[in-house]
Amino acid sequence: MSKISISLIGFGRIGQVHMNHLLKNERYSIKSVCDIKPARDFAQRYPNIEYVQDYRDVLADEEVDAVLICTPTSLHPEMIKAAAQANKHILCEKPIGSDLDAIMDAYHEVKKHNIVFQLGFNRRFDDDFLSIKGQIDKIGVPHILKITSRDPEAPGLDYVKDSGGLFMDMAIHDFDMARNMFGEIEEVYVSGARLINPDYAQYGDIDTAITTLKFANGVIGVIDNSRQAVYGYDQRLEAFGSEGMLQNANHSDFNTVYSSNQGIQSEKPQYFFLQRYMKSYATEAKFFADSIQNNAEVACTIIDGIMAVKVAQAARQSLVTGKPVRVERVPD
Amino acid sequence: MSKISISLIGFGRIGQVHMNHLLKNERYSIKSVCDIKPARDFAQRYPNIEYVQDYRDVLADEEVDAVLICTPTSLHPEMIKAAAQANKHILCEKPIGSDLDAIMDAYHEVKKHNIVFQLGFNRRFDDDFLSIKGQIDKIGVPHILKITSRDPEAPGLDYVKDSGGLFMDMAIHDFDMARNMFGEIEEVYVSGARLINPDYAQYGDIDTAITTLKFANGVIGVIDNSRQAVYGYDQRLEAFGSEGMLQNANHSDFNTVYSSNQGIQSEKPQYFFLQRYMKSYATEAKFFADSIQNNAEVACTIIDGIMAVKVAQAARQSLVTGKPVRVERVPD
Amino acid sequence: MSKISISLIGFGRIGQVHMNHLLKNERYSIKSVCDIKPARDFAQRYPNIEYVQDYRDVLADEEVDAVLICTPTSLHPEMIKAAAQANKHILCEKPIGSDLDAIMDAYHEVKKHNIVFQLGFNRRFDDDFLSIKGQIDKIGVPHILKITSRDPEAPGLDYVKDSGGLFMDMAIHDFDMARNMFGEIEEVYVSGARLINPDYAQYGDIDTAITTLKFANGVIGVIDNSRQAVYGYDQRLEAFGSEGMLQNANHSDFNTVYSSNQGIQSEKPQYFFLQRYMKSYATEAKFFADSIQNNAEVACTIIDGIMAVKVAQAARQSLVTGKPVRVERVPD
Amino acid sequence: MSKISISLIGFGRIGQVHMNHLLKNERYSIKSVCDIKPARDFAQRYPNIEYVQDYRDVLADEEVDAVLICTPTSLHPEMIKAAAQANKHILCEKPIGSDLDAIMDAYHEVKKHNIVFQLGFNRRFDDDFLSIKGQIDKIGVPHILKITSRDPEAPGLDYVKDSGGLFMDMAIHDFDMARNMFGEIEEVYVSGARLINPDYAQYGDIDTAITTLKFANGVIGVIDNSRQAVYGYDQRLEAFGSEGMLQNANHSDFNTVYSSNQGIQSEKPQYFFLQRYMKSYATEAKFFADSIQNNAEVACTIIDGIMAVKVAQAARQSLVTGKPVRVERVPD
Repeated sequence: MSKISISLIGFGRIGQVHMNHLLKNERYSIKSVCDIKPARDFAQRYPNIEYVQDYRDVLADEEVDAVLICTPTSLHPEMIKAAAQANKHILCEKPIGSDLDAIMDAYHEVKKHNIVFQLGFNRRFDDDFLSIKGQIDKIGVPHILKITSRDPEAPGLDYVKDSGGLFMDMAIHDFDMARNMFGEIEEVYVSGARLINPDYAQYGDIDTAITTLKFANGVIGVIDNSRQAVYGYDQRLEAFGSEGMLQNANHSDFNTVYSSNQGIQSEKPQYFFLQRYMKSYATEAKFFADSIQNNAEVACTIIDGIMAVKVAQAARQSLVTGKPVRVERVPD
Repeated sequence: MSKISISLIGFGRIGQVHMNHLLKNERYSIKSVCDIKPARDFAQRYPNIEYVQDYRDVLADEEVDAVLICTPTSLHPEMIKAAAQANKHILCEKPIGSDLDAIMDAYHEVKKHNIVFQLGFNRRFDDDFLSIKGQIDKIGVPHILKITSRDPEAPGLDYVKDSGGLFMDMAIHDFDMARNMFGEIEEVYVSGARLINPDYAQYGDIDTAITTLKFANGVIGVIDNSRQAVYGYDQRLEAFGSEGMLQNANHSDFNTVYSSNQGIQSEKPQYFFLQRYMKSYATEAKFFADSIQNNAEVACTIIDGIMAVKVAQAARQSLVTGKPVRVERVPD
Repeated sequence: MSKISISLIGFGRIGQVHMNHLLKNERYSIKSVCDIKPARDFAQRYPNIEYVQDYRDVLADEEVDAVLICTPTSLHPEMIKAAAQANKHILCEKPIGSDLDAIMDAYHEVKKHNIVFQLGFNRRFDDDFLSIKGQIDKIGVPHILKITSRDPEAPGLDYVKDSGGLFMDMAIHDFDMARNMFGEIEEVYVSGARLINPDYAQYGDIDTAITTLKFANGVIGVIDNSRQAVYGYDQRLEAFGSEGMLQNANHSDFNTVYSSNQGIQSEKPQYFFLQRYMKSYATEAKFFADSIQNNAEVACTIIDGIMAVKVAQAARQSLVTGKPVRVERVPD
Repeated sequence: MSKISISLIGFGRIGQVHMNHLLKNERYSIKSVCDIKPARDFAQRYPNIEYVQDYRDVLADEEVDAVLICTPTSLHPEMIKAAAQANKHILCEKPIGSDLDAIMDAYHEVKKHNIVFQLGFNRRFDDDFLSIKGQIDKIGVPHILKITSRDPEAPGLDYVKDSGGLFMDMAIHDFDMARNMFGEIEEVYVSGARLINPDYAQYGDIDTAITTLKFANGVIGVIDNSRQAVYGYDQRLEAFGSEGMLQNANHSDFNTVYSSNQGIQSEKPQYFFLQRYMKSYATEAKFFADSIQNNAEVACTIIDGIMAVKVAQAARQSLVTGKPVRVERVPD
């Protein structure tokens, strides 16, 4: 089977993470890397990979089968649309976009073409979450979903300013994971608070939230988010039903325990997502290749991407209005 | 110090549990037991304890210092009121009552007398919850409270019919524990579901609920309740703040682990509250004696009892209206 | 069924522990308590129990069915012998004695009488160890036994002087537990050390030991002992075989966990045996009553008591000689 | 800094594992691979790497800085000797050899040359064991070392025949880890058994062992080995001392837990060493490069390799004689 010729668009931090995984994956050959900024020493380090600064050059390259979009969120929709028009398979970093009209425009274009579109919510590709999803029937009829998702350190105001807010920037992972487990969310209700950094008020943002979910299948759920858990990245899910409960635990760098007259001390969770979910990026690439080469079902679709944004927007609206808010589905 | 002469009013299942603990507690002498039903062999088994069938006879007994009320909930207010009028110290089983007017009537009477009134929310007196409360400053400024409270087996319709519903019967413990940790609750929002027994609809009751809480001090919280966790009684609390997180784990009868080619198997949680909280009833009696004999602060006051009912009623209203509901405080 | 009339001989610390459990057990009535020292306020506290100072008076009392011997170890054999001659059922604290000739003398007397003799190795009566023994078939053919047994605080020289040494005083519990799990021990080899208190050398004693065991059924085992584990009483057993492994974990007073930027901190094990095995004493009394009243098999026999001493003596000999030592069985 | 030009000698299973790690390590360039057997498609897969069939050709290659020896154990000493004579740095798979005379011969040659020699005991390079060693001072004065080391599946007779026996093939890792933690071992005593496969008797081998260790610094230790733990690879270490205890736990592929009416089920340990210690091989290469390029202290020396063999031989002798056996040190 011939390799997938792929081009990477956007060569910031996360783009470089993807690059390292693609280089180790024998199913891909990296044709080019694209970023508006020039890259120092690129030709020297990667003599076999082209470096371009206009993504339209990538799309015009007939040898390119697929693109991996790692640009800022606001640019995703136009790039998705253009890549679809160029009949490239698309792996796009999360979230799919920030403006719903632009997102829907891209969506309609994607639907017209016979291409694979996969969204890169890293958590869907994590071994533990895949394992829970694979065993989900063991809980019988599902009743309750609980997700805890806390970052280790609150971002500064510079980041918060353009982040899209807690729901679009952070909880969107949890909304996607909730849908991944139990399908469509019909209603959300938010209790939000500013308990870590009062200055977030300048940008209308919060740092702490509890979001209640009602699913179409009758399950009820809750997500608690915090921008700052001093003990590290806290990523837990609990799925409860008529036959039992599935949970995951946080990961630590070491499985060592120290017993002293002070108590029994074990290691903190891994620091943040680049430690906890590093392997997920490799799995994303593997699943994407399976869909392109073997017609495997897409693990995270464009609809998944759109719905996560819709849930995040509904959550925002609930925070502002103080009322439960319905989530509209993507019309067929 | 002379013993506290106590009388037990209501000799059903929970009354008998209290009786066994009081018999082992050297600070009490049981003067009499009262129930409208006659008790077989009582005189033979307890030759030194009087058995009476009208609680007014207990209150008229000048030798009685304190009463422990274990009658059906609807009778609590009138008995509290009468006991207060008779200047008896009162330890009353949870909840304080079902009708708020009657409860307030009893409350005003209690306030007039120089007596100790302690409400018997068993969980406040549990070693683990006492330990968490005792260490609560370690979490710094509190941000999030999470309580999981699930019974092992859903009660039948006969029980549900007169139970007062999930909030008054079951979640009221969690509302009290939430207030015990972080003070007044100002608003509640409920997502409820009937996923275990659809017949609960006959009595307007649900079997599954997620309740969001907003506290006066800015903390946000969530309680998830289920009437049926097949793995046993699930009683977990998580208090999260600026400096860390405190959690408790469920208790098992045995600390044994079996490793086989099927996995690593450990024991289920203890079956239900009479296993999990048995020791709490002894601690309740100890705290009550400390308040009577040593002026120790009352661990669970009449205001605590009233507020738990108010939160439960607000939760019920939120379920019915689908909206967040404010909780009114007890006027001074 | 009529109550067992029991007399307690030896009213020191452990005698008083037994007393409290017997008082709560409806199957017993305590006829008398015996100690060479007078007891202050005894008559006042226990008006219905006789207090005597010569144990022969207890044995002469025809109303006494059973005796519970809690005197110093060196007195056990003569008291067992005399109690057997008086046809009293006997529950004797561990160990059965220190001098093997005296022990065998008592043994032969006990065999002549139709009485129940139960030795009080508390650990056999602990819920977790009972649970492991009850599930032992789940490990298939047994291969390896590991026991960790560490005290929280090293005893002073005064105690060590008359203790009989680490093997007779402390490890004897582990030898008995090993036999309880897998039957006769045929050979022991000891590596001992003095790492905590060098002054133990004055009495030829050690404070740290690893003892290897060979069982008659082919199992091999190891016990590690320490007189001082600063994190608390460490009591673990691991039984490993062809189908898996059974383990127990230590018990903590609280199941609470604190996560902070320092790590994840849980509670230490309970401090010592009076915390960890308190309930075992109640179970001992229950099993003893079952054997007397219902012919239940004796849970810890006189042979068990003798063999534990023989293993302890062999271990001592191995320490002294630096060689493996055979353990002789009790001749029929 | 220029890359280390390395040659891989022996291209079996473990040689290929090393190859994959070296390919990803930017500090190395693989000059050649050597095996007596031809390798299919090698030139096609690795166009930039030479393939040779006589290791002397590797040693004659002046461009080669270092060799990684992955041949059968019996060949190690002569290859080490020849590589030292050729002034190549040497990373050699465990164990260093089987014949002590040949090993010492190689040792003396290595001493003559200014080269880095690192032995590849994978466990020394595992994150958890490195972490325990890094924290070892937290236990205060060390008292007891316990190592559990059990394979998931007993090897067949074909493997056992040439394996060198349980001590040289398997427990040698544990002997090295014991020395790694607490220094020289002075005496060993073995209880061995054949409980899994009686046919091992054909080759004088056993499948189950408990080995007691006495260290020069006074610590006492014990290792328990089994060729077959049905629940998976069991790799635990416990270091106990005056200030506390350090332990590691096994690793599982998933951190998921399933609670049902059958109990609380978590995942088994990872299957075997290629899962558990895969990352260790990468760390070995990193440490080796640090020693070559930065003069970092060698993490596992040739003395370490020799002493592990000496302890294994002493253990074998103890098994045969039934007595404790002294371990001789390497003369200076």
